[in-house]
Amino acid sequence: MNWLKVVGICFGAAVILAIGLLIGHFGIPGDTVPSTVQDVTQDLDEEFIQQFMKEVDTEKIRENLSILAKKPHPATSEADEELVRLMLSRWRDSKTGLDEAKEERYNVFLSFPDEKNPNSVKVLNTEGNVQFVSQKSESELHEDQKDPTILQPFLAYAPNGTVKGQLVYANEGKISDFQYLANITNLNGTIAIVRYGGIGRVNKAINAAKFGVIGVVIYTDPKDINDGKSNPVETYPNSWYMPPSGVERGSFKENFGDQLTPYYPAKEFTYRIPESEIKGISHIPAQPIGFGDARTLICQLGGPGAPDNWQGALGCPYNIGPGFRTGEFSNSDVQVNVYNKRTIRSSANVMGLIRGAVEPDRYIMYGNHRDSWVHGAIDPSSGTAVMLEITRILGTKLKSGTWRPRRTIIFGSWGAEEFGLVGSTEFAEDYYSKLRDRTVAYINVDISVFANATLRVQGTPPAQGVVFAASKQVKTPMNDLSVYDNWISHFNRNSSQYGVIPQVGTLGIGSDYAPFVHYLGITCMDMSYTYDRRVTSARIYPAYHTAFDTFDYASKFIDPGFTSHQTVARTAGNILLRLSDSLILPLGARDYGETLEEFYKKAESFQANLNKHGMSLEPLKRAIDRFKAAAGSLEESIKNLADVDKTPLKIRMINDQLMLLDRAFLNQFAFPDRLYFSHVLWATRISSSVATFPGLADAYQTAIESDHKHDWDLVHHQLTIAIQAVENAASTLETVTKL
Amino acid sequence: MNWLKVVGICFGAAVILAIGLLIGHFGIPGDTVPSTVQDVTQDLDEEFIQQFMKEVDTEKIRENLSILAKKPHPATSEADEELVRLMLSRWRDSKTGLDEAKEERYNVFLSFPDEKNPNSVKVLNTEGNVQFVSQKSESELHEDQKDPTILQPFLAYAPNGTVKGQLVYANEGKISDFQYLANITNLNGTIAIVRYGGIGRVNKAINAAKFGVIGVVIYTDPKDINDGKSNPVETYPNSWYMPPSGVERGSFKENFGDQLTPYYPAKEFTYRIPESEIKGISHIPAQPIGFGDARTLICQLGGPGAPDNWQGALGCPYNIGPGFRTGEFSNSDVQVNVYNKRTIRSSANVMGLIRGAVEPDRYIMYGNHRDSWVHGAIDPSSGTAVMLEITRILGTKLKSGTWRPRRTIIFGSWGAEEFGLVGSTEFAEDYYSKLRDRTVAYINVDISVFANATLRVQGTPPAQGVVFAASKQVKTPMNDLSVYDNWISHFNRNSSQYGVIPQVGTLGIGSDYAPFVHYLGITCMDMSYTYDRRVTSARIYPAYHTAFDTFDYASKFIDPGFTSHQTVARTAGNILLRLSDSLILPLGARDYGETLEEFYKKAESFQANLNKHGMSLEPLKRAIDRFKAAAGSLEESIKNLADVDKTPLKIRMINDQLMLLDRAFLNQFAFPDRLYFSHVLWATRISSSVATFPGLADAYQTAIESDHKHDWDLVHHQLTIAIQAVENAASTLETVTKL
Repeated sequence: MNWLKVVGICFGAAVILAIGLLIGHFGIPGDTVPSTVQDVTQDLDEEFIQQFMKEVDTEKIRENLSILAKKPHPATSEADEELVRLMLSRWRDSKTGLDEAKEERYNVFLSFPDEKNPNSVKVLNTEGNVQFVSQKSESELHEDQKDPTILQPFLAYAPNGTVKGQLVYANEGKISDFQYLANITNLNGTIAIVRYGGIGRVNKAINAAKFGVIGVVIYTDPKDINDGKSNPVETYPNSWYMPPSGVERGSFKENFGDQLTPYYPAKEFTYRIPESEIKGISHIPAQPIGFGDARTLICQLGGPGAPDNWQGALGCPYNIGPGFRTGEFSNSDVQVNVYNKRTIRSSANVMGLIRGAVEPDRYIMYGNHRDSWVHGAIDPSSGTAVMLEITRILGTKLKSGTWRPRRTIIFGSWGAEEFGLVGSTEFAEDYYSKLRDRTVAYINVDISVFANATLRVQGTPPAQGVVFAASKQVKTPMNDLSVYDNWISHFNRNSSQYGVIPQVGTLGIGSDYAPFVHYLGITCMDMSYTYDRRVTSARIYPAYHTAFDTFDYASKFIDPGFTSHQTVARTAGNILLRLSDSLILPLGARDYGETLEEFYKKAESFQANLNKHGMSLEPLKRAIDRFKAAAGSLEESIKNLADVDKTPLKIRMINDQLMLLDRAFLNQFAFPDRLYFSHVLWATRISSSVATFPGLADAYQTAIESDHKHDWDLVHHQLTIAIQAVENAASTLETVTKL
Repeated sequence: MNWLKVVGICFGAAVILAIGLLIGHFGIPGDTVPSTVQDVTQDLDEEFIQQFMKEVDTEKIRENLSILAKKPHPATSEADEELVRLMLSRWRDSKTGLDEAKEERYNVFLSFPDEKNPNSVKVLNTEGNVQFVSQKSESELHEDQKDPTILQPFLAYAPNGTVKGQLVYANEGKISDFQYLANITNLNGTIAIVRYGGIGRVNKAINAAKFGVIGVVIYTDPKDINDGKSNPVETYPNSWYMPPSGVERGSFKENFGDQLTPYYPAKEFTYRIPESEIKGISHIPAQPIGFGDARTLICQLGGPGAPDNWQGALGCPYNIGPGFRTGEFSNSDVQVNVYNKRTIRSSANVMGLIRGAVEPDRYIMYGNHRDSWVHGAIDPSSGTAVMLEITRILGTKLKSGTWRPRRTIIFGSWGAEEFGLVGSTEFAEDYYSKLRDRTVAYINVDISVFANATLRVQGTPPAQGVVFAASKQVKTPMNDLSVYDNWISHFNRNSSQYGVIPQVGTLGIGSDYAPFVHYLGITCMDMSYTYDRRVTSARIYPAYHTAFDTFDYASKFIDPGFTSHQTVARTAGNILLRLSDSLILPLGARDYGETLEEFYKKAESFQANLNKHGMSLEPLKRAIDRFKAAAGSLEESIKNLADVDKTPLKIRMINDQLMLLDRAFLNQFAFPDRLYFSHVLWATRISSSVATFPGLADAYQTAIESDHKHDWDLVHHQLTIAIQAVENAASTLETVTKL
């Protein structure tokens, strides 16, 4: 061998060794670190999201809806139980199902009309003869309505009784409405007829009772629901508007959750408070009627004319009473007859689960209620149809082995929502610790499509960014715009950070997100497709909670073609995947800073009076500044995170800070008399109209009115609560080793 | 080239390639995963623990103590502020300090005696002449006591007033004691003298007031504190026993924390409740005196003889009064004069921090209070001396770069503990969210050495295992046994899992662990070296809260040689390192199962009456079985965890389950009237003596006594709370993807 050969061989060997080194180092996955590497790397797959969105099928949604809305399925009915089995079979399907599904039952306190003893509103003359009786139920205008099990109109939990008195018209039943009447006439022993709108259903009766009223009749005015139209040729089945016989049913109570078992799941072992201790319900009978019947009553009322803004669209001048004007009903009384049955029934939630591959102990939740009042095609089956389409696509990917999310996804099909978010609240109580410690976010899609015009979203600020990201990737069904761009043209606001952006609304207690946000402090969002407010001023879609909310109605008037359903499925599914699969949680911290700043600006209107009573807003300002600095520097550090710093525990630390941000605003002592309300920023306000910290706003309102020292003390107490909540949230976002 | 050569070269190339592959794969650490690997691997270093324990230096502890106990340093005094500066300088030392240290101030409501207007107990004859007046303060028996700033004996928060009446002797001031007296005599307008012991300090006065008593005198009976010895030749400075002039000072209130700012840190912005709304304090004046003075009063009492078990060791028969027997004090009254000053003062916590290398967002806390009543050599400086020795050693390792814990360690030097755990409670309120979400455990060492005989530990069950592990590695100072083996000979119990083991006691509200366990639900432990109960029956070390608790006393009679201090430092430091450095948290889940089983067994005594009132213990039993199964399978899966499964997020998931176990027993609605109590298992019991779920036990006791339906309802409510807490804890331990 000559030296050239030696060099050649050595060089060759070196090259081969180098290749081996390179392949060995980079090419062969290590045996002992695969899941570690997976931990580091499993991130959102944008292509997968596109694939998911492509597969959302209007035909499947239509099919889902036709099955779901086939029968009236109020909570715990046989039809509801059939749907429980349907959900289970879908979610347990070996080709399109989830990893696991189960039903979970609670024995909850419900209220139903008595079939054999229908509620009614009657007009009785002085001899006691019946001159008028309200319609037993809606007129049957389409075969989709045909069903012997339709629940007759009633207000769940309205107390039973037969009460009789002179009728008065009390507008929307607000305190100010009754105050107005009381200044003119004696309300003791009267029956009040009020229209839906303005305030919560039950509050109309609670307010009425304070003025001596002994019974309440509630109806839907065509002015509020039908853009003024009341002629049957203009209403369903000829349009989406409510026919004269349509009656809005509903739950008649203030608090959500099972009334007898606050804070505890309604199981066999659970203590139940006596019914007499239930708070926030009416103590006088009440019954809803259609505007056809209402017209008969209101158009014959005597007494002075009602104020202009009390006038409706029944086609006559509204007088306030008391009693009827001379004519058919002269001297007649109105009688309200309520025969509801309160009962404890077993209601099921159906839960479905997809195990997370990397962070199984982090939950993304998605929920929708299952129970309706009647057929409930829109409320809630439009949402259920969407949820089932989302789970079908994800289930198919899962079962075929092409996808598993980074985090665990939990789907909830809630029972008994119509009775006041009962199923979801029982779930929140039952799973309290796990949900508190592990839930990243809850996505609620109740009614998925109210109308075809635009997306509408409510949520806490950390949800804003992910909703925007998703809505930019979905096209609207109606034009070539993205959902985002279309949305911004309907609801927008001027953000100090971003300029004009779509307006994300605040969460009240309108659907199943309530226990998650108010009790558990979980970042929540609620979405649907909704109205063009330039086209209709309907309070809600006109078939809401009536017997007209059928598949026919939905497919003819709400979403022909089901493209809005598809749009919501794409948007909600996109959001779900971003939350479940992103390495770093797509939750915004800085967006809360903006909210806090807005709250502060609103609170400044209190400043002079606060100062006068020895309080200062300065510490609140400092706390908000601290929060903004912490949020800013956290987001900055996320943005600048080098790949080598993306270690599993570093990422987890950041994600935990984001996950627990909403939790840091919880204070279970903030609203001692208000069931479940703990989120210092989002509790609903009671008396104040100032959109700032609700406890502070309400306390301020009370103190301004009474000017008692004790009430000013409560203002100081609430100011302390607000400051402390902001400080806690700031500290959650700050460097974890900051002392 | 022949084919053999070709084969040879190919083989050679293959070997070289293989070597390259192997080296490349196993030999070269990946650039992008170093901290990942560190995440996986950084575990406890047993050698480091041995090294730490070896370096614990009795001489350093003695030095610490002599500095700490040099001056009386009650909360917010100038001497306390000096110690704040001392702690800061130690923890900021560039060679032996921590990563960071800071002081954190709260403006808290305190109460002090008025130097110019000393409190007193007097005997006045019918002409109003003073026949006796209690000693202003302790006699000066050693130069260590010399100090002009010694707080005169008083009871913090006892209300001011001058009250005069006939004296009665009321034993320990229990309700049953006053009941006994009331059956014999009229207590209205009397002054009661009671001895320390049996029940809480302030409860003696709260009970007294219920029977018409208008003032209370409290003293320490030699029977309870001195094993009967009262002769000065037998007491300090000749022994550890309390001299006749010794007076136990103390806080006179039921609730812990700052009285004016419950649930919120006492900052400038914080709302303060009016003093009139403070709960759990006495409304009649009270004053403590020494047993020398008590002898003068009690030995001259008239009336019938007190029952046998009321008799003490003052050397005379104890009569109950009312009033004095014929003699020097015939017809004389006793007058209690209290002139305390309530005031808001700035009290500092000093916080020290060592950043965790791998999980900086997981905190191990270690705390001890700094404030004393007088010189406080034992209470609390024995604990502070130990804490400073632990931080010196760890700080030295840290600064020399030889060690950094896996998790973050936070040290707390609490202010104003003697006024009712004020500093630690303010900290818990101020840092609520961070602590709630991130704290693994809190170790409390208040008084580190009461006596030389044995370790004593109180804690929640998850702490048991780590305390045992540490105590097996430390030798006792007195014999050749391990601390564990010595401990077992003093306090032990029969465990269903382990056989005979040392008894870990339950946590009450005696020291700064209280806000952490009761309000935050953090796994807590409290430890010290203590008495041989075969040798002394002293209620507590006799110089407790007196002016005799000096360096001289501690070094002569409590721990000459400071070897017990050393033992506690070694044990507590060992525990701290196991918690901060172990890959998997050394917290036991199964040990809680044992507790729940014991609670259940105790609750079975309620069963017959529960059944009679429509309740069943079965659901509780089922919940406990579920808990035991979950705990068992979690511990099993930890034991069998293969190395490849030890991925950072898998370990973190398990650790979070263990960390949050105690948290799962929290229920902020469980004890609505009891400030801070939320831990369903460990709230102190009020009326029941049955060691089971405290809410259930107390409610049962009330219902048994009243037999009112409403009270049985409350039993059912508490039973529900207990079941739900156990269910929540079980679900925390179960597989995270279990629906």
